Amino acid sequence: HSESLSFGHVGRARTNRVLVVRAEGQGVNPEIRKSEEKVVDSVVVTELSKPVTAYCRCWRSGTFPLCDGSHVKHNKATGDNVGPLLLKKK
Amino acid sequence: HSESLSFGHVGRARTNRVLVVRAEGQGVNPEIRKSEEKVVDSVVVTELSKPVTAYCRCWRSGTFPLCDGSHVKHNKATGDNVGPLLLKKK
Ligand code: FES
Ligand code: FES
Repeated sequence: HSESLSFGHVGRARTNRVLVVRAEGQGVNPEIRKSEEKVVDSVVVTELSKPVTAYCRCWRSGTFPLCDGSHVKHNKATGDNVGPLLLKKK
Repeated sequence: HSESLSFGHVGRARTNRVLVVRAEGQGVNPEIRKSEEKVVDSVVVTELSKPVTAYCRCWRSGTFPLCDGSHVKHNKATGDNVGPLLLKKK
């Protein structure tokens, strides 16, 4: 599906398919648990099993709230620079 | 500053200022630590001091990687539904 959004600045570039927009006006989560008003997850840190567990902050993971490495594809496709939060037992 | 982005689908709505776009083509972090190729943070969970600590996943916090509540303004402004990861000591 698609959403209606307003931008502070929109300009036309060389073709109909390229626009200049400010990312600030955009949502960051297009797909995950959209029926929830606010997606909040909790981790009881004493229950972590592995030495390091990666949690997603790009909202593109197929195993959200865990990171599955999808931030790599997202960064390449968009020029973004996001990555996970690593929870370490020590 | 602004970025050049391409969209899978762009349609014109009633006025020049409203567009229909798919959020998938967008970056999620417009401002934080853009000099870093990938923003990854680590938490040694044994060092957490409070019973609950909120970590940002909206990329709008003024205290990133911690959550400062800025997701509320972001969600209102964009229609998004994102929120923090809560680390709980028990
Ligand atoms: S998959 Fe989202 S941060 Fe890794
Ligand atoms: S400020 Fe980003 S999730 Fe709360």
